[in-house]
Amino acid sequence: MIKAGIVGGTGYTGVELLRLLAMHPDVDVQVVTSRAEKGLRIDSVYPSLRGFNDLVFVEPTAENLTACDVVFFATPNATAMHMAKELLSAGVKIIDLSADFRLKDVAVWEEWYGAKHVCPDLLEQAVYGLPETNREAIKNAQLVANPGCYPTATQLGFLPLVKAGIVDTSMLISDAKSGVSGAGRSASVVGLMSESGESFKAYGVPGHRHLPEISQELDNISNAPVSLTFTPHLVPMVRGIHATLYAPLKNKEVDLQKLFEEFYADEPFVDVLPAGAHPDTGDVRGTNRCQIAVHQPQNGGVVTVLSVIDNLVKGASGQAIHNMNIMFGLDEQAGLRHVGLYP
Amino acid sequence: MIKAGIVGGTGYTGVELLRLLAMHPDVDVQVVTSRAEKGLRIDSVYPSLRGFNDLVFVEPTAENLTACDVVFFATPNATAMHMAKELLSAGVKIIDLSADFRLKDVAVWEEWYGAKHVCPDLLEQAVYGLPETNREAIKNAQLVANPGCYPTATQLGFLPLVKAGIVDTSMLISDAKSGVSGAGRSASVVGLMSESGESFKAYGVPGHRHLPEISQELDNISNAPVSLTFTPHLVPMVRGIHATLYAPLKNKEVDLQKLFEEFYADEPFVDVLPAGAHPDTGDVRGTNRCQIAVHQPQNGGVVTVLSVIDNLVKGASGQAIHNMNIMFGLDEQAGLRHVGLYP
Amino acid sequence: MIKAGIVGGTGYTGVELLRLLAMHPDVDVQVVTSRAEKGLRIDSVYPSLRGFNDLVFVEPTAENLTACDVVFFATPNATAMHMAKELLSAGVKIIDLSADFRLKDVAVWEEWYGAKHVCPDLLEQAVYGLPETNREAIKNAQLVANPGCYPTATQLGFLPLVKAGIVDTSMLISDAKSGVSGAGRSASVVGLMSESGESFKAYGVPGHRHLPEISQELDNISNAPVSLTFTPHLVPMVRGIHATLYAPLKNKEVDLQKLFEEFYADEPFVDVLPAGAHPDTGDVRGTNRCQIAVHQPQNGGVVTVLSVIDNLVKGASGQAIHNMNIMFGLDEQAGLRHVGLYP
Amino acid sequence: MIKAGIVGGTGYTGVELLRLLAMHPDVDVQVVTSRAEKGLRIDSVYPSLRGFNDLVFVEPTAENLTACDVVFFATPNATAMHMAKELLSAGVKIIDLSADFRLKDVAVWEEWYGAKHVCPDLLEQAVYGLPETNREAIKNAQLVANPGCYPTATQLGFLPLVKAGIVDTSMLISDAKSGVSGAGRSASVVGLMSESGESFKAYGVPGHRHLPEISQELDNISNAPVSLTFTPHLVPMVRGIHATLYAPLKNKEVDLQKLFEEFYADEPFVDVLPAGAHPDTGDVRGTNRCQIAVHQPQNGGVVTVLSVIDNLVKGASGQAIHNMNIMFGLDEQAGLRHVGLYP
Repeated sequence: MIKAGIVGGTGYTGVELLRLLAMHPDVDVQVVTSRAEKGLRIDSVYPSLRGFNDLVFVEPTAENLTACDVVFFATPNATAMHMAKELLSAGVKIIDLSADFRLKDVAVWEEWYGAKHVCPDLLEQAVYGLPETNREAIKNAQLVANPGCYPTATQLGFLPLVKAGIVDTSMLISDAKSGVSGAGRSASVVGLMSESGESFKAYGVPGHRHLPEISQELDNISNAPVSLTFTPHLVPMVRGIHATLYAPLKNKEVDLQKLFEEFYADEPFVDVLPAGAHPDTGDVRGTNRCQIAVHQPQNGGVVTVLSVIDNLVKGASGQAIHNMNIMFGLDEQAGLRHVGLYP
Repeated sequence: MIKAGIVGGTGYTGVELLRLLAMHPDVDVQVVTSRAEKGLRIDSVYPSLRGFNDLVFVEPTAENLTACDVVFFATPNATAMHMAKELLSAGVKIIDLSADFRLKDVAVWEEWYGAKHVCPDLLEQAVYGLPETNREAIKNAQLVANPGCYPTATQLGFLPLVKAGIVDTSMLISDAKSGVSGAGRSASVVGLMSESGESFKAYGVPGHRHLPEISQELDNISNAPVSLTFTPHLVPMVRGIHATLYAPLKNKEVDLQKLFEEFYADEPFVDVLPAGAHPDTGDVRGTNRCQIAVHQPQNGGVVTVLSVIDNLVKGASGQAIHNMNIMFGLDEQAGLRHVGLYP
Repeated sequence: MIKAGIVGGTGYTGVELLRLLAMHPDVDVQVVTSRAEKGLRIDSVYPSLRGFNDLVFVEPTAENLTACDVVFFATPNATAMHMAKELLSAGVKIIDLSADFRLKDVAVWEEWYGAKHVCPDLLEQAVYGLPETNREAIKNAQLVANPGCYPTATQLGFLPLVKAGIVDTSMLISDAKSGVSGAGRSASVVGLMSESGESFKAYGVPGHRHLPEISQELDNISNAPVSLTFTPHLVPMVRGIHATLYAPLKNKEVDLQKLFEEFYADEPFVDVLPAGAHPDTGDVRGTNRCQIAVHQPQNGGVVTVLSVIDNLVKGASGQAIHNMNIMFGLDEQAGLRHVGLYP
Repeated sequence: MIKAGIVGGTGYTGVELLRLLAMHPDVDVQVVTSRAEKGLRIDSVYPSLRGFNDLVFVEPTAENLTACDVVFFATPNATAMHMAKELLSAGVKIIDLSADFRLKDVAVWEEWYGAKHVCPDLLEQAVYGLPETNREAIKNAQLVANPGCYPTATQLGFLPLVKAGIVDTSMLISDAKSGVSGAGRSASVVGLMSESGESFKAYGVPGHRHLPEISQELDNISNAPVSLTFTPHLVPMVRGIHATLYAPLKNKEVDLQKLFEEFYADEPFVDVLPAGAHPDTGDVRGTNRCQIAVHQPQNGGVVTVLSVIDNLVKGASGQAIHNMNIMFGLDEQAGLRHVGLYP
């Protein structure tokens, strides 16, 4: 059994890791840390876990974490970077669900995250944990930077187009919509249901931290510089991301449906829907699956891709477990076979 | 492998059976019927099932259903009764999720369901499928009447009190609240989100079909005639039932917490929360679990019980599978171990 | 024009006062205070008010508030009591939307609100501002304690029954459900949509501050001591309260429909629905109206009353303006004629 | 007083007309038709109207409708066209909230609406009722085609850009999101809260009827042919539309904020928010207002416009009343001054 630790067990990605790992056949969660809830039984804070977990929240220490084979950081940004080196030295594998190791350019990271990076030397070593693009590197990684939720939904939709070189990457648009759990479990006014219920709005239009992350990754696979307009919106629901993607087609005659189906033929967690479909976040609720549809409205010059994920699973904790499965040579789908909770 | 058939595979309880059975280690779903969707692949109607089910909806026939070991009826009321005899004669076990076999008194059934019962002789043989009260009878049953959603949440909350004889059963109140999926997947105006979203109302206050069902069962275990006021309400959410139950205490000094904990100590799917707790439907979402808390406000003369379930699981399809597990001598929890999908 | 001030203009009841008073023909809002938002234009914080209000938030001072004819306190509890005396001395009328002056027994207040009351001598003078019971006293009041939201919905439902003496007041039950705006506009985890969306739960079952308020008022109009069980619940919607009330009938033969219709015949803001109706919070959204239905299920011994209000209007700011209208001899409905925002 | 009739009073736009006109100082609603609800009091179907309307639904006849000064058609498509001629001949003004007279090209109309147009000769005479572009024509119109909801939000956002000729109209994108009330009040599966609650999806991506309407209008004001990609989405809320619009800038140096502010300086119902703002559908709930923000992310080559309306008011019934006010020479804002129902 793989011994796992979770740093930051009280946020939504932490609880989601606990939900998913509770049923994982090869993993034993041994340490769950929370400074704020130290000493409390986990299932007293999260009654959904009663009967599945009898651990107590502890403080994160070198001692308890280095006893793990793998440590998940489900922490706010600029936290994992303070503990990474010590754990890596001790041979622990790290999967960081925060943004600390996602950007290769430390200056860009520091600009967008407003902090000094304390271990920029680890950035090169860190592997961006999108299995659909980086599977081989993940296999041998000791430090995985788990992708953001918007970047996952957006990249999976653009990837086949950009790799095939059939879109003009100078005007990519990702109009993305997220349920409120993406904002995490911190007290706030903006997250109140009175504010976000029965209403809809965009946010971060002038600039959002996921923009440089998406751009970096699309640049990597594109031959031309990518210019992306990214607009996140808040949907009055709890879980789910829907990315609506637009790009000008350089070639209107390509069979887009076939392109997508072939591109993802062997991917266990990307499901290309039949031609004409409209994926629904509700169909992937609670699962690690991305469902995608590709359209060419009026056979015109713009391709429209619809990509849905559960932001807490494929957009965070499920993808982290997928990465762990790859890193430890397990069945990639171990612990991640779920039918979407519809309705 | 147990060969299972599902009659009425396009309603929410049918789809929920498919979701749960897709992961059941001992069951193979072989027939799923739907007159309306005949010939269509199931996963074309329900994309959440893609990759888990490659069956096609078929018409229900004696031939395809008698080849099954067990048939679930996820049909509207007054449907299962037309097919039950033939299947039972063929040795098929039946679990009826509708109300056809729940009431023992055929006159009462006909009054509340507005139809002529075509096989009243089966009513005595039918076992009311609440495992917490009828486990032994279920083991040997060939025909199980799966309880309604409100009756499940209400009975589990009242049971310890009524069995212990410590409440005045002449004024029991069940103030129950349900998510909209309880109304099923039929086109209607009242079920539109425009009608039921961002609003709250009671319905059926003069009388609801679940009233005689609850009364019949509570009568069975009570020494005094039970008089119940039952008020269902519609909550602007999809899944979940919260029953708030009230009863006058005949004895104010009983340790209610201990009573409940001991009563349900061995039940795998009833979880008595610690003293002072307030169960949340969100903690049992997607699971077959009932979470219960018992309160005696101001140490007064009224006991308040809070009981939550997922109406589609413990209130329908999950309980049906629990019954199947018992009927076939399987591990009771087979296919039903899930952590609640929180948040 | 009546010069009005609002202390605490950034909470939901404050904004709702601004919404309603913006259209009131006889009132000019001159001062809106907020320590946190001091110096900001109100409509920069609340874009819904753009074009209707060009004021700037100011700090509350004796000077700016005593220049008003009436001051509304839309503040947290234990705030108004610190400023009341000075304003009253200056001849300003006060309508306190918080709980500071609702309870007559200072010991009870201090127990439930966990603070020392700084002006208990004002409690006797304060008039409980439920127009349906206290209209005459309100006319001459200088200090009105505006009722709580749950107490308003509950009292209006019980009043006709208790006044008529036809229910056994030793077992009254108020099972009340509120939208999340009742919890106010303060950062919190419990109020996050991720916590309160798509879920339902009770809270405060052992004891809630509105219990002594309701009990005090029902005691006043009852000849027998009232014993009330009060259970508040949180509904995944923004606005609205639905109180479901139960009482044992001492006389089963009373024409309850007639009783209610006659009792409220002259009340502009209480609307008794036709027999058999189920009021919906959505029908009173944005209005100062309480819609009520009374039922006697199965002609039995329990009366069930369904009472709905908009918690921010009839449960708070609308009722406050109704009180102001009465205090200043205006048309009672001035500024309060609204059709419910359905759907 | 203007005598008004409403044909199709039981849909959401019909009820919304009744809500708004109940408070209009210059209008008396005299006829409300509904074949299905004939003979029923309106307020028995819509309790929100109790006390504001004591009419009974009647069948539409030449007699009752020609007695009106103005008739609103709040009917399904392909209904108004059958009655228009007779009413126009009788001198009645018509405001059609359906799509029958929106498209000038009858062939396009018949293709998208799947019906034979019975009075194509009226298409030229019909005035497209977007006051912000057609005010002068509306003044003298006898037949107004009230715009669709998506077209209203989309056009108001694109207008300043297209009129100024600063965007490349060969790649306009409108990514639009609507609450579920836009689908109307007809029984359907897709509209059930179980289907549309707690989920998000696009629909009509290959083609939606509002596309030709928007294109026609934008073509009118553009010097170059407009190519629009239009993607509607369904948001789990009742009211509100948020259009997120994208266009390539031909000139990156234009002061977009100033352009928008000046363009709409005199419009009573279009409110350009300050630079950097993110409009929220909740701020215009229940009002006839469109709130708009314009962004140029990273000072790049793409302009992003955020435009919100209440689909039932500015997107339907409020705009219809605005048109009526213009047609009858009334104060344009009569009956339409409302503060948004926030929260």
